[in-house]
Amino acid sequence: MASIGVDGTGFAPTATRALEILLGDRFTTARAVRDQYGRGESYPHLLSPDAAAFPVSTEEVGRIAAICHAHRIPMVPSGAGTSLEGHITAPLGGLGINLSRMDRIVAVNEADLDCVVEAGVTREQLNQHLRASGLFFPIDPGANASLGGMASTRASGTNAVRYGTMAHNVLGLTVIQPDGRMIRTGGRARKSAAGYDLTRLYVGSEGTLGIITEVRLRLYGMAETMVAATCAFDTLAGAVESVIQLVQIGVPVARVELLDDAQVRACNLYSGLAMPEKPHLFFEFHGSKLATQEQAETAQAIASEHGGSGFEWAVATEDRNRLWKARHNAYFASVALRPGAEVWTSDVCVPVSHLADAVLAVRADIDRNGLVAPIVGHVGDGNFHVLFAIDPADPSERDRAETVYAAMIDRAIAVGGSCTGEHGIGMVKRKHLIAEHGADAVETMRLLKQALDPLALMNPGKIFL
Amino acid sequence: MASIGVDGTGFAPTATRALEILLGDRFTTARAVRDQYGRGESYPHLLSPDAAAFPVSTEEVGRIAAICHAHRIPMVPSGAGTSLEGHITAPLGGLGINLSRMDRIVAVNEADLDCVVEAGVTREQLNQHLRASGLFFPIDPGANASLGGMASTRASGTNAVRYGTMAHNVLGLTVIQPDGRMIRTGGRARKSAAGYDLTRLYVGSEGTLGIITEVRLRLYGMAETMVAATCAFDTLAGAVESVIQLVQIGVPVARVELLDDAQVRACNLYSGLAMPEKPHLFFEFHGSKLATQEQAETAQAIASEHGGSGFEWAVATEDRNRLWKARHNAYFASVALRPGAEVWTSDVCVPVSHLADAVLAVRADIDRNGLVAPIVGHVGDGNFHVLFAIDPADPSERDRAETVYAAMIDRAIAVGGSCTGEHGIGMVKRKHLIAEHGADAVETMRLLKQALDPLALMNPGKIFL
Repeated sequence: MASIGVDGTGFAPTATRALEILLGDRFTTARAVRDQYGRGESYPHLLSPDAAAFPVSTEEVGRIAAICHAHRIPMVPSGAGTSLEGHITAPLGGLGINLSRMDRIVAVNEADLDCVVEAGVTREQLNQHLRASGLFFPIDPGANASLGGMASTRASGTNAVRYGTMAHNVLGLTVIQPDGRMIRTGGRARKSAAGYDLTRLYVGSEGTLGIITEVRLRLYGMAETMVAATCAFDTLAGAVESVIQLVQIGVPVARVELLDDAQVRACNLYSGLAMPEKPHLFFEFHGSKLATQEQAETAQAIASEHGGSGFEWAVATEDRNRLWKARHNAYFASVALRPGAEVWTSDVCVPVSHLADAVLAVRADIDRNGLVAPIVGHVGDGNFHVLFAIDPADPSERDRAETVYAAMIDRAIAVGGSCTGEHGIGMVKRKHLIAEHGADAVETMRLLKQALDPLALMNPGKIFL
Repeated sequence: MASIGVDGTGFAPTATRALEILLGDRFTTARAVRDQYGRGESYPHLLSPDAAAFPVSTEEVGRIAAICHAHRIPMVPSGAGTSLEGHITAPLGGLGINLSRMDRIVAVNEADLDCVVEAGVTREQLNQHLRASGLFFPIDPGANASLGGMASTRASGTNAVRYGTMAHNVLGLTVIQPDGRMIRTGGRARKSAAGYDLTRLYVGSEGTLGIITEVRLRLYGMAETMVAATCAFDTLAGAVESVIQLVQIGVPVARVELLDDAQVRACNLYSGLAMPEKPHLFFEFHGSKLATQEQAETAQAIASEHGGSGFEWAVATEDRNRLWKARHNAYFASVALRPGAEVWTSDVCVPVSHLADAVLAVRADIDRNGLVAPIVGHVGDGNFHVLFAIDPADPSERDRAETVYAAMIDRAIAVGGSCTGEHGIGMVKRKHLIAEHGADAVETMRLLKQALDPLALMNPGKIFL
């Protein structure tokens, strides 16, 4: 393994030499560089790789993997570095392989509503590129993540209730296997019943099976009209019931976000707003002018039946932005609640019918433990986030947050939910994976891992305990 | 293997005895019964298992698998028997495990829009059960297939353009592994980023990795209004272009089916209709009254721009049924074209932008070879079916059909398409799987197979050559 080498990287000298010859100054052992790839966002420990590589092509990634494979060097792929659960840390050292220089948009097929991008292309870069075509890629996890990273963690975000997650929107992948061989999964057809669904096996595998170097994505036509709306509710249950009914009758809501009263208070403070300090829903509807107007009216009628009030809606871009401003700034508002605090965010996903109970239970836990932690939720699919604002000077605060967080996950799993709707397992949630799926199912996952990565070189320490 | 036994089944006597004790008269070696599970629809060879078992619970399937595992008996799961590519044949003999008696609807969660059914429940049974709730399950492959079978083959059908395939609508599975252990995949949350996506690995695995005994499905609210429409086109290209544009501007069409002129002629003959003998599109729109009306008007406007004429649309159930009658009877119309003929149906899927070319090329091939074979397509996703009506008395006709069919698949793969959009690989398309995905990707699939079924007992001879 990496620790037996003698040249400072921990690698065998021939391995280091081969990587230097291949990559020139795109291979480095400089600490300042390596440390950029040792944490990700919101992971508390720095676990840097021994060296970092910056490939510019699929072929080059294949050659890097072949060298690492021959020398038994662990490989830790990364993209924009926005991972939240320690996915890109290198607990066993090894080579950090950062794909952010693979940022070419390879093809856009307007007629077929698909595109191919290199793994390092970010979602904002793609949407910027698409602007003139009238198409867009809807998956929006908040951060300007790389599309390879989003595929690797099965990301989703506020649009998932209408457009699905990365599992639904990745049509195919180019993957470098641990020994350096390349495979292509999926294809250009919109559907296929041909063989095992390798695409969806690699989506969400967090770099533990191979390195995603290219992603084929589904695109969508920009809606003629977007309507935004907000509404306050007397109770959280009323807000959730409204969404359940709206989805049940088939209203194709594009986004629907829940802010609890603590989050609304934070947003009022941060953005100088005067929203009533009650649970709020933020809606977005996409479609024709007529259809979106009708959807907004239906949402308003349903909200009124469930204690909703102050329903506001807007079509013009600046008015929409004004309405959604509080939601967009939710993260920063949470940070601002406690200057100097670190924000630690975690997510769970529950059946929508359990969402109100799940949010109320964690809110009670937060308050009982004297923590500051607003809650925002992608309420259409039962996914919510707690943004713990933690004083780094008080270690007991982190401990209390971890207690609240563990109980939240246990409750989610108890009602058939997931320990993570969209952040992934990484280092952080490995034990919860077993609680969620059962030991036999996780053993099945481990058999797959062993089959595709028998030397255990790919992103070791992630997903599995 | 199965051939070394001495008791007529080919099984070791202790295995037979164990199955008899477990299942009583739900285990049989009677030829008439076994032969029902040796072919499926539209597969030309009878390859029956040595015996058939009819379990009634997941636990019982687990015990059957444990017995087969201990005695190295191949296992061939089946459901309603509507498979088209020889999935349920038993080329190595073994035990046919028919799940059609596992037909309980275990749970329907109206608030969460999901349900759990045993694998033998058929889609019509489920929708009948759901009728009073205002919910429905949209995936409709034509046949009244079992939901376990539809999951196993990654089925889809006419609704897929709006609602996706089984890959998008299976939320979780109960699976008996080859050694008899049970795992549960997925969960009740609408999305999860927790670990490998086992659900989607089993969906489409055609019984080669384990036996699906329960399926958790996504449900949808019945639309307030459904609008049907038909339209004739001067050219196939005009019909396809209309659909591309419709999807591109984001009209959420629920179904859009293409009938080529040969199919229209067949339908006119069979159903006593007088449609112009031109390519036709059949549409269905789901939504509010206002939204569906607007969608139909948009479709009509776009069709007119592409040589569409005679656009008719209807809202009332009987009027909708009248319009869609020709499409629903397309299969029987093809059969009726040549009394006594066997209909052999095959499907491919291409990028939508290649659909017109792909259909025209196979039409020219069919005509050049003197065959009778109408074409219908799920044009929204580029998937089309050729219904070869073959005289069983003329072996050269089958040969010519196979030539046409092979060329159709090669052309589909050459433009990045799939050798099967929704029927699966089975026995028939194994060599095309390699052409489509490449040897290295198929080798990756084979590694997964070996990891989860190291004794190669699960549905042997399928997917892999």
